[in-house]
Amino acid sequence: MTETRTFPWPRLHEFTVRVFRHLEVPEAEARLAADVLSAADRRGIDSHGVARLRTYFDLLSAGRINPRPRPRIVRETPSTATVDGDNGLGLVVGPWANEVAMAKAAAVGTGWAAVCNTNHYGIAGWYVMQAIERDLIGWSMTNSSKGVAPLWGGERMLGTNPIAIGFPAGKEPPIVLDMATSAVAFGKVEIAMREGKPIPLGWALDREGYPTTVPQSMADGGALVSLGGDREHGGHKGYGLAVAVDILCAVLSGANWGPFAPPFAIRQAMPEREVGKGLGHFFGAMRVDAFREVDEFKSHLDDFIRTLRATRPAPGTSGPLLPGDPERAAQKERDTTGVPVLGAVLEDLRDIARLTGVPLE
Amino acid sequence: MTETRTFPWPRLHEFTVRVFRHLEVPEAEARLAADVLSAADRRGIDSHGVARLRTYFDLLSAGRINPRPRPRIVRETPSTATVDGDNGLGLVVGPWANEVAMAKAAAVGTGWAAVCNTNHYGIAGWYVMQAIERDLIGWSMTNSSKGVAPLWGGERMLGTNPIAIGFPAGKEPPIVLDMATSAVAFGKVEIAMREGKPIPLGWALDREGYPTTVPQSMADGGALVSLGGDREHGGHKGYGLAVAVDILCAVLSGANWGPFAPPFAIRQAMPEREVGKGLGHFFGAMRVDAFREVDEFKSHLDDFIRTLRATRPAPGTSGPLLPGDPERAAQKERDTTGVPVLGAVLEDLRDIARLTGVPLE
Repeated sequence: MTETRTFPWPRLHEFTVRVFRHLEVPEAEARLAADVLSAADRRGIDSHGVARLRTYFDLLSAGRINPRPRPRIVRETPSTATVDGDNGLGLVVGPWANEVAMAKAAAVGTGWAAVCNTNHYGIAGWYVMQAIERDLIGWSMTNSSKGVAPLWGGERMLGTNPIAIGFPAGKEPPIVLDMATSAVAFGKVEIAMREGKPIPLGWALDREGYPTTVPQSMADGGALVSLGGDREHGGHKGYGLAVAVDILCAVLSGANWGPFAPPFAIRQAMPEREVGKGLGHFFGAMRVDAFREVDEFKSHLDDFIRTLRATRPAPGTSGPLLPGDPERAAQKERDTTGVPVLGAVLEDLRDIARLTGVPLE
Repeated sequence: MTETRTFPWPRLHEFTVRVFRHLEVPEAEARLAADVLSAADRRGIDSHGVARLRTYFDLLSAGRINPRPRPRIVRETPSTATVDGDNGLGLVVGPWANEVAMAKAAAVGTGWAAVCNTNHYGIAGWYVMQAIERDLIGWSMTNSSKGVAPLWGGERMLGTNPIAIGFPAGKEPPIVLDMATSAVAFGKVEIAMREGKPIPLGWALDREGYPTTVPQSMADGGALVSLGGDREHGGHKGYGLAVAVDILCAVLSGANWGPFAPPFAIRQAMPEREVGKGLGHFFGAMRVDAFREVDEFKSHLDDFIRTLRATRPAPGTSGPLLPGDPERAAQKERDTTGVPVLGAVLEDLRDIARLTGVPLE
């Protein structure tokens, strides 16, 4: 179980496409979904790539996700759309709604899409990278199943509700901020659990609502903590951001909000109430040239980036990075050396290979 | 100097109007500027109310701020505008640009305004509260003079760059998130300094870039830390948000970004480079009914709010608040008992009274 295999990303991509095809997802959409998952594997966000294929497989197999959705706009203005995702894969509905936002931006300067009746959409950053390629400022958010306690709360009420914002630069690489609004993602707690190590104070609470350093205590009915941690260090801010993401993604679109967001696991109990349809996303696109000449914007952003890189480093560090740097570095490496797939995930993929007849290796 | 006087807020408001009038600000704009400052005093955000009048007074007196600006739209699309604030008070230019964003939202669903050539605009939350009154979701951000170190940086490079987002509820009070993207505002360090108390680890660095608990060490060339604190607790996220705010407010609008944002103090040295015009703001407004029936949205938001309030409290707490609760509680109290003005601020106001002939008491 602790075996790790390394795959060239196109191999995992092809496997993913064929698995989705096997599950009745049409060819073009299977490829798109695989693109989004591969982006996570290439960028080093292991929790959001093929590691999730098992759950997509389970939910599609059980008929809990619609393999051939027909997303549609149910309400719109020149700069906005509300999209019903027809219970499709978020990996398919998300890109569709993001296109709607980008098309509206092309027409009237900015475009915004709130999406209901959808499912997990992969990494938030993928969507804003699409926008960046068109000289748009991209926004992407999603709500997710409960795992985070509000500040002063003793139980899970909100998802890790990530926010991504992306800006196209000129000669410098683009800025891609992609962050959970919790102090850390659940994946980090899982890693500590696997390694039998404690977690730092300020990441999680146990099931009674007390701060804990034991990863298992968080997993067993405890909760993650919002970005900022306690009140003194700004935990109300991370919590406030998570609330804002939930409202934009779910209350505005007609999806399930807060603790009622559907779980992303076949064995997890369904929430006690249904307050909307599926999960929710929110996308935005703003044309740079709606505000300023693109060349001017980019040369200033390059200058800003270089200025930040030239910051005097804090003692013992090599100085600040820019949002997106670590993921880009991971991608550079993995596009050469391959994507490492850990034991438990490898086991899942081999299971899927057996069940579908799609060869993994 | 440690005397504290309490004033009914309308008394401070009237004083502020007359001081601005004395400094050649037209009547309607003086009232508007006083409205924004009074909102801070009433809501308990003492650092952003009359405590700042001295600096506005200094900068206007020295001719560094234009008392009679003619803000104008220099570029636009149906959903966006770039505004040049003509170096006016942010307290006047900000509301003007916010109106532009709201008018565009009325026309095409959402409206966005990036503003350059402006100055400090008071509390970010004031602007989104204007939007809320019109059933709009409001967004407001501003960059500000450098005070915060990027993660792994050892010096000030960014402002506290606040973000406000506001949502209109139904029977429940609205949600008003108004947060600096630093772990804490400088005001909290000032309070500790005045009281001779240490500050918690995770708030600030000294001038060498080491974490410090001595408030004076932060003030003497040190820096505040981004929301999240160190890398392990998500400091890269708060830093990333501050970067995003700076780009939207300044790189996009043509204002001075990052460490080159102009200082908000007459005696502070000007930045070494000028990379744009003045300070920058960014406003947004989204019509709720562009996405969903207003009544439906509000009843779900009420339900969401009540659900969060019903969270099992963490041990030793009375349970979660909603963003905007503390400020609303402060306003309720202060509208009855008055606004306490601390010694140093009182001294400033009395100085201004002497210099202008406007009676304070």
